[in-house]
Amino acid sequence: MASLPRPEAQDRYTTMPSLKWSPAEKAIARKAFDAALQRELAALIRQVKEMAAKIEEPSKLWDLEYYLSKRRQEINRRYDYRYSVLISVFADLIRHGQLREEELHGLGQDKLGYILGLVRL
Amino acid sequence: MASLPRPEAQDRYTTMPSLKWSPAEKAIARKAFDAALQRELAALIRQVKEMAAKIEEPSKLWDLEYYLSKRRQEINRRYDYRYSVLISVFADLIRHGQLREEELHGLGQDKLGYILGLVRL
Repeated sequence: MASLPRPEAQDRYTTMPSLKWSPAEKAIARKAFDAALQRELAALIRQVKEMAAKIEEPSKLWDLEYYLSKRRQEINRRYDYRYSVLISVFADLIRHGQLREEELHGLGQDKLGYILGLVRL
Repeated sequence: MASLPRPEAQDRYTTMPSLKWSPAEKAIARKAFDAALQRELAALIRQVKEMAAKIEEPSKLWDLEYYLSKRRQEINRRYDYRYSVLISVFADLIRHGQLREEELHGLGQDKLGYILGLVRL
């Protein structure tokens, strides 16, 4: 997460420490995670450019600062690449439309089962 | 300072509580102060639009957030409209090119003397 310089305490997700991730699964997970993060950040860049282009009065400068700060904190909390919480992270990203199920193809049925179960909750 | 929502502690300037400001002087001071602040904020809006338009990678989003935060704090500290510190405020603004001497014409010679003395320091 080189693009997010100030990580905050991570307590958003439930831990599932007992699952084992094979090297192939780790590669799939990393790729899916990074792709979702890049899409999220690319969308944020577009949003910030739009907000800035529309600024006509000073108060909107501080609105932009506040928005950036909130989004940074939210992205920092949401994108937590620890295997012990990754099931919840992927479920959360799918629920919010930032990741598609197909991007996780190749993970074991145990993991996919947990993830899709959480998505449907 | 309606455009600066989060004022911080003001201890930047030396106080000069003994000077008396006539109503006419107060009007001149207020007009000059507001004009300098509006110019500063207009320049900041232009700067932020330029920075945002050039963003191509996520780290620049957080650079922009940091820049906005620093500039807000700096403007909050610098633009301190209390008569007890206004002499130093005006000297500081002139020194930094945000106010022209002519905009203070009409202030008493006592005040102009102090201000220009500080500018030359």
